[in-house]
Amino acid sequence: MTMETCVNEDSWVRTVNLPPPSLLDNTADCDRLITSLKRQLRTDRIVVDFHTLPELPLRLRAWKYTLRCVVVKDPYANQWYLVGISDPQKDLCLAGLAVDLGTSRVAFRLVDLCNGKSLYETSFDNPQLRVGPDILTRIHACDRPGGLHELNRLIIRELNQEIQSACRSCNLTKKNIYFMALAGNTCMTHLFMGLPPKWLIREPYIPVINTLNLERASVHGLDINPTARVFVFPNIGSYFGGDLIAGILHSGLNRETEPAILIDVGTNAEVVLGNDSWLMACAGAAGPALEGGMAQIGMMAGPGVVDRVSIEAGTNRITVDTIDNLPPMGICGSGMIDLAAQLFRAGKIDLRGRFIPEACGQELQVKADMPYFEVVSAKNSGTGRALKISQADMDSLIRSKAAMYTILETITDSVGLLLDDLKTFYVGGTFGTYIDPESAVTIGMLPDLPAGTYRTLGNSSLEGATQVLTSCESLRQIEQIKTKITYLELNVNQQFMNRFSAAKFLPHTDRSKFPSVTVR
Amino acid sequence: MTMETCVNEDSWVRTVNLPPPSLLDNTADCDRLITSLKRQLRTDRIVVDFHTLPELPLRLRAWKYTLRCVVVKDPYANQWYLVGISDPQKDLCLAGLAVDLGTSRVAFRLVDLCNGKSLYETSFDNPQLRVGPDILTRIHACDRPGGLHELNRLIIRELNQEIQSACRSCNLTKKNIYFMALAGNTCMTHLFMGLPPKWLIREPYIPVINTLNLERASVHGLDINPTARVFVFPNIGSYFGGDLIAGILHSGLNRETEPAILIDVGTNAEVVLGNDSWLMACAGAAGPALEGGMAQIGMMAGPGVVDRVSIEAGTNRITVDTIDNLPPMGICGSGMIDLAAQLFRAGKIDLRGRFIPEACGQELQVKADMPYFEVVSAKNSGTGRALKISQADMDSLIRSKAAMYTILETITDSVGLLLDDLKTFYVGGTFGTYIDPESAVTIGMLPDLPAGTYRTLGNSSLEGATQVLTSCESLRQIEQIKTKITYLELNVNQQFMNRFSAAKFLPHTDRSKFPSVTVR
Repeated sequence: MTMETCVNEDSWVRTVNLPPPSLLDNTADCDRLITSLKRQLRTDRIVVDFHTLPELPLRLRAWKYTLRCVVVKDPYANQWYLVGISDPQKDLCLAGLAVDLGTSRVAFRLVDLCNGKSLYETSFDNPQLRVGPDILTRIHACDRPGGLHELNRLIIRELNQEIQSACRSCNLTKKNIYFMALAGNTCMTHLFMGLPPKWLIREPYIPVINTLNLERASVHGLDINPTARVFVFPNIGSYFGGDLIAGILHSGLNRETEPAILIDVGTNAEVVLGNDSWLMACAGAAGPALEGGMAQIGMMAGPGVVDRVSIEAGTNRITVDTIDNLPPMGICGSGMIDLAAQLFRAGKIDLRGRFIPEACGQELQVKADMPYFEVVSAKNSGTGRALKISQADMDSLIRSKAAMYTILETITDSVGLLLDDLKTFYVGGTFGTYIDPESAVTIGMLPDLPAGTYRTLGNSSLEGATQVLTSCESLRQIEQIKTKITYLELNVNQQFMNRFSAAKFLPHTDRSKFPSVTVR
Repeated sequence: MTMETCVNEDSWVRTVNLPPPSLLDNTADCDRLITSLKRQLRTDRIVVDFHTLPELPLRLRAWKYTLRCVVVKDPYANQWYLVGISDPQKDLCLAGLAVDLGTSRVAFRLVDLCNGKSLYETSFDNPQLRVGPDILTRIHACDRPGGLHELNRLIIRELNQEIQSACRSCNLTKKNIYFMALAGNTCMTHLFMGLPPKWLIREPYIPVINTLNLERASVHGLDINPTARVFVFPNIGSYFGGDLIAGILHSGLNRETEPAILIDVGTNAEVVLGNDSWLMACAGAAGPALEGGMAQIGMMAGPGVVDRVSIEAGTNRITVDTIDNLPPMGICGSGMIDLAAQLFRAGKIDLRGRFIPEACGQELQVKADMPYFEVVSAKNSGTGRALKISQADMDSLIRSKAAMYTILETITDSVGLLLDDLKTFYVGGTFGTYIDPESAVTIGMLPDLPAGTYRTLGNSSLEGATQVLTSCESLRQIEQIKTKITYLELNVNQQFMNRFSAAKFLPHTDRSKFPSVTVR
């Protein structure tokens, strides 16, 4: 089976036959293998990993000069690395590892390099959370002696433990992992590589490196085959990381013929607009509300977190859905958006997002001058306490949604397009997985486009990393994406502020922009 | 001073100025450095060693975006490695290490990469001698479990110790060694890299590798800067090693306009014939006599070893010179050649190399049917015993010299040349350092060419390795040499045997080939 799938021209696993040596052709084993691989891969240069050499002669002879090779193309030169060899008669699994290295969560997938099948998948908290919850505190932690080393060791050690668990559960040895692709924001990839992130947040915001070489896993201290290569997605700058490049790759935005847009929302909103001939990117602060960063009951999406809210017409009864259907513990960004949309539709908040006491009734209480709206009663909650959101939380959400909409308006305007011109609207990230586009349109966070325009991508960063493991072609695409992207510096000028002010209404001061939004 | 010498376009040390970053040009530090280096080195690709990255940002800023770079070109692709950076304001020594890895002796030279000056030089026994005196026994030792690992560890450990001593005596830290070039025969380089030499001596005589990548020093376990790169001279086959490529490079044979020849004599005689447009190489067994491998008093060249012998006309008194003028302990190959030439001139041996009792007188004794000739009396010897050579030793020398001459005749004939056509005759190796070409001509080992034709090269393998450390251009030449060489398989056929038989006379059966040789 594996033999068949491995004839795939886009795979990193290839079967090679060498002419056996003779007195008339006494080229060395390695050079002989290189000659055959060069022909097969149509390249000028093959770099055989030094660590495969000691075993090469015995294996070539045992396998009668036919072998399965794991090769990895250098993304930045016309050269390939031979990172592993395997018996063509045995169906040994040759695995790759895709990692989405998030500031808060790390997602991790083991893949069969031969056929792209997922072997194992998991996600876990970024252990650097122990040092600091966000990028800024971690960068400041690096100012302490040993701080950078500690952050680096935390993530490498955790990855190694997860690799061990993954291998155990798949009945795989660590040596069978030959390739790894990792996507993360610029700060996370710097910490992963042990590079000082200090200058990322200081004008003029300079990373140590944009485009990373394909290094051996051992260089990073990763406990997989030491010959394995690690592809780290390149970044475009301090505020535009490899995770977003992976997202673009996965979405296929760079291959669209019509203008399309991709957003990835966390504390920062990252936006890429473009098609197969150009790409324009920008990033802006969206505020913490969309990531569940509200003061009281905000949470990251996870089990027991409210991700859907509906208010029944007539009875005005609030129903919530939680992830995994557990008793509600808190509310995440997409839950907040749903809630705001439902409250707005039900007339419980006004155009500016203020709770209307007459409409809210008993659900609204005021403590120390701050109105609180009860979403889940203490009786129904998983924490034993009522889940409430404050007016401050709602204001924060309104600012976030206004920032998001303003960024979208600004970037489309910068290339002379209107939001209505967008034929596809990709929503990435955890946020994208749970968001209800209709609710986001209702509150005026996303433009009022036909429902079919919106496509959620899931963990597009992990999917992009997976794509690198299973398709040679993807590396060429990444290089193209990197070269094509123009980064738009969002100048917070008077025009931006005017747009922002207009977007702070529900859905917008200009209702004609949101014809589909109706209120009961 | 260093600043001036480093503008040398052929040096591995370059000074680079970068434009400082700004909000309008926020390329990362590493990518910015690459852009400048690409322009300066006129290349498409610079690979910055991962280990230089963590310190790069701080240093760039401290040095105001001007830095001295140690760069090393990949010999097999148009890419350069950045292996070290240094403060342009400080005159830090950036060093390289040249190694000639011989089967018996290892020669070792520390060089200032900026100006090519030798900083330290030493030589020592190859510690693998403890496992086996010659290539064959060491290859067989690798058949034992752990045998290869032991041989590899022996040489790496010894090199690391010598590096430590060298650094101590030069007041240099090991981290300041950024480049290493190593030349050795095919077996020695395999053992250095921990690669199994098993198939080198088994038909069809296949090395594990011919052309070696520029690996990091850490890959080989060498205790110098871990970013340092190690250039191992490529081999052409089992019997034609990188040491000879280094010799060709040093001799300049590959740049001669007229046909020239290079010989390197040990147990094997290695011969390269050619000029700037073609190179023909062969190797053949010369027998141990030329390396001092005689049964009784033969020794490798070294202190107290007889390297010159003369017999006074008239008195027939024998005078010997020893290396370092110490009391004589034994005799080396070049001493044997001198002795044979002098005995032949003095009429003490006949055309076939047989001692003539009447001419030798008391100096000749016979024990158990074997004639012995006393070269140094017990009284004058450094060992307390007389130094004698037996008829068997002399016969062995004759066979060796006949083999040498036959190989020379065969290779020149193979390209339609005569020995008289050779305009330059390079003699490499320790043997070449001590040999008196006139004596070698007298016994018919080397052809009867004008005295000025012969040039001794000293340790051409070490000199070739040194050249790599100080000249970028040399890597291109090595590649050319490798590509140009045709290897001539010496078929020991009837014609070869006829030539060999004719060459077993002193100087030759055909005296017309040696017009300059006269006998008293």
